[in-house]
Amino acid sequence: MTTIDLNADMGEGFGVYDTGADEFLLRYVTSANIACGYHAGDPHIMRKTVEGCLKQGVAIGAHPGLPDRLGFGRRELAVTAEEASDFVLYQVGALHSFVRAAGGRLNHIKLHGALYHMASRKAELAQAIVNVLHRFEPQLLLYGLSGSQLHLAAKDKGLRYMSEGFADRAYHSDGSLLPRHLPGAVLEETESIAQQAVSLALTGSIQTLCLHGDKPRAQEHIKRITESLQIAGVKLKALK
Amino acid sequence: MTTIDLNADMGEGFGVYDTGADEFLLRYVTSANIACGYHAGDPHIMRKTVEGCLKQGVAIGAHPGLPDRLGFGRRELAVTAEEASDFVLYQVGALHSFVRAAGGRLNHIKLHGALYHMASRKAELAQAIVNVLHRFEPQLLLYGLSGSQLHLAAKDKGLRYMSEGFADRAYHSDGSLLPRHLPGAVLEETESIAQQAVSLALTGSIQTLCLHGDKPRAQEHIKRITESLQIAGVKLKALK
Amino acid sequence: MTTIDLNADMGEGFGVYDTGADEFLLRYVTSANIACGYHAGDPHIMRKTVEGCLKQGVAIGAHPGLPDRLGFGRRELAVTAEEASDFVLYQVGALHSFVRAAGGRLNHIKLHGALYHMASRKAELAQAIVNVLHRFEPQLLLYGLSGSQLHLAAKDKGLRYMSEGFADRAYHSDGSLLPRHLPGAVLEETESIAQQAVSLALTGSIQTLCLHGDKPRAQEHIKRITESLQIAGVKLKALK
Amino acid sequence: MTTIDLNADMGEGFGVYDTGADEFLLRYVTSANIACGYHAGDPHIMRKTVEGCLKQGVAIGAHPGLPDRLGFGRRELAVTAEEASDFVLYQVGALHSFVRAAGGRLNHIKLHGALYHMASRKAELAQAIVNVLHRFEPQLLLYGLSGSQLHLAAKDKGLRYMSEGFADRAYHSDGSLLPRHLPGAVLEETESIAQQAVSLALTGSIQTLCLHGDKPRAQEHIKRITESLQIAGVKLKALK
Repeated sequence: MTTIDLNADMGEGFGVYDTGADEFLLRYVTSANIACGYHAGDPHIMRKTVEGCLKQGVAIGAHPGLPDRLGFGRRELAVTAEEASDFVLYQVGALHSFVRAAGGRLNHIKLHGALYHMASRKAELAQAIVNVLHRFEPQLLLYGLSGSQLHLAAKDKGLRYMSEGFADRAYHSDGSLLPRHLPGAVLEETESIAQQAVSLALTGSIQTLCLHGDKPRAQEHIKRITESLQIAGVKLKALK
Repeated sequence: MTTIDLNADMGEGFGVYDTGADEFLLRYVTSANIACGYHAGDPHIMRKTVEGCLKQGVAIGAHPGLPDRLGFGRRELAVTAEEASDFVLYQVGALHSFVRAAGGRLNHIKLHGALYHMASRKAELAQAIVNVLHRFEPQLLLYGLSGSQLHLAAKDKGLRYMSEGFADRAYHSDGSLLPRHLPGAVLEETESIAQQAVSLALTGSIQTLCLHGDKPRAQEHIKRITESLQIAGVKLKALK
Repeated sequence: MTTIDLNADMGEGFGVYDTGADEFLLRYVTSANIACGYHAGDPHIMRKTVEGCLKQGVAIGAHPGLPDRLGFGRRELAVTAEEASDFVLYQVGALHSFVRAAGGRLNHIKLHGALYHMASRKAELAQAIVNVLHRFEPQLLLYGLSGSQLHLAAKDKGLRYMSEGFADRAYHSDGSLLPRHLPGAVLEETESIAQQAVSLALTGSIQTLCLHGDKPRAQEHIKRITESLQIAGVKLKALK
Repeated sequence: MTTIDLNADMGEGFGVYDTGADEFLLRYVTSANIACGYHAGDPHIMRKTVEGCLKQGVAIGAHPGLPDRLGFGRRELAVTAEEASDFVLYQVGALHSFVRAAGGRLNHIKLHGALYHMASRKAELAQAIVNVLHRFEPQLLLYGLSGSQLHLAAKDKGLRYMSEGFADRAYHSDGSLLPRHLPGAVLEETESIAQQAVSLALTGSIQTLCLHGDKPRAQEHIKRITESLQIAGVKLKALK
């Protein structure tokens, strides 16, 4: 039977600020990428988000980003490979402590924003991050783009890697993403998005599907995606 | 045979700023309290300080503080018990990840500055911190003032507590510290400080002695303290 | 003719986070207290909020707070009077630069959260803040509690002070606020709030009325308050 | 008579951290570039550094950087031109408030680190910064590289620009800097540095000479530079 994991970024508020999407997302996803206090999140939100995941049976992942809260970790910062891996380890450890104190288990890592893109593209940076994650815990799963430098680094090191797909993005026939600036690269229609999700799941080229809680009509899209996957006989299940 | 642990705060630089004392301290102390990025320290300094400790055989502790880098964690901030314990857990987890990735073991926790004082005085805050540390790792040692609220909370919870003494402070006959503002409360002479260290070690009322690397003549004091302890037959040894 | 100023805190988002109330508030208030990047706000939001005020003819004030973005400046921090006045001057200067570059004029200052409360209570802190504001610009208006230490300090120094009232709080007959924990201290009903606003305006004990954009039913309250003031013949007008 | 300005970065400590060079520098430079709290500096250090400049008759400039204290503003961050100019205006305003409250005058602006390099290279960013400085205060001087995009933007806008030279760097015959990685690009010998300073001053291609207080032997170099300039009949004088 075909299975797929649904992941979403969570705990991305800060202090009094709340993105407001988490309660809904927890009911639909099978794994959560929790912000760790650099690009978003704070210790209190981290604790509550971990508790929410444990209550709903959602697999818990760390979602480390660049130390740029003002830019939400979306702007590239010219860091060395060593600096990047130190940032990742710091944040992973911080989240891990909340998971451990709550009696749970840290399942996976997904990099955030500009750090995700830099590690997809830069071999040295990708290797440094993979090495430090492997030293911290060799059983961790790493989520990321298929065929990226991060993917190659994980393969070399023997760290389990889960390729992720995007229901709202168009793909080339070779499985690579159409660049965002091309016409038709971003899908807007609920049905197209749901069909894309089913197609990605059935071809087996990806293991986890990324859902976005902060877009307009996000809830409508997510409901339709999960319905369509169930109708197509795809089982929703976290990777372990 | 009488033994005592010598602890010092380390890794308290930030970015380009270096306090400059760590290399010296690593040669004299048996346990290090490493800043975790809130009041001082950053991921790179944390990694290097952990490596230095492992190389010199110095026991590694986390030194969490309040989120006030500008004030070096020395100003009280009106946080709730839950906020304080979240801050501690976040920082302990971050440091733990560097220790674990380097193949070491996290030995102890010592609170920093205003957080140390608040947890000595406030029962609810002390209990919240002890509870979260115990949930994270029940084998951790906690360093602090003898007879403080933190001490009581640790005793209640069954978390091992190590009372710390100060070689450069005068004590009442009941073992409590003379308040700083009283004449003679702070010892200045190297010989008085060294004698106080020996006396504290021999009476057995404390298990660990706190050394300060950032005072004028700190190196002279520390050398004389360790010499005097050895002459008095006190063995320097980290608590385990 | 009776006039009153209506003030509200604005620009209290940060980065991707938006409190969402500003567009509505700009249509109803006569003066805005703009966050300056410590407890909330950032340079981009400051620029846009200043532009919004100039467009709508709303008087512009700086709203400096404690350097505790995580706690939204609501937690007391044990700062010295000199530290507090340096924090205020830094933030006032930062906001002033956006006002000046946009061709406007900085009208007033209102302290935020814990800093507001500390300066109401502590004479030395209040004096240090008043002194530094007076040195920066003796024509500035200062908003605050009537009869507070800040009020006294402003009177001594000759800095113009505008007493502010709260439409949703009950008052003793001597004009002082009922403490929040007492029954009936916080008004919930729209009509009671609107009547309180009118009553405060007509007695002339205050010069400016503080509106909150972030409470449930805030928009309903604010609409009713302005209607009731107009019906009562009170003219809404910024202080100059 | 030939005159030249000697500038140095100052106030680049933070909280308990002190770079330690300022007291010496204040005795030798004619203008100071004061850190504004982003890459370094804090409100207390800003106040004290401004006071030090006024006491010694040193011209006061703002030294704004990127919001990356951990990286000391030396790492490029992918900001838009509008973000960069907002960052600059915020910091310039903050420093200006301390200068104004102390009864002084803000003389000039010099960008720091990665922001300096980005504005030298990127026309849109340079123009945005020049425009915002001109709107804030058209009388400000701007220090920077000769012939850079920042230089061109200042010329276009009519903002006065002062080209700066480096005594410890080798130049091509056309006045451009030898890239750092080439052999001989960085001068190490005190006499070569002092001769370079004199040569730069006498050719008249630059108006201000940048001195570094944080290099090994910095004090020796600076003393010899000022001696050599005086012997060569060059008068040290701030630009106004």
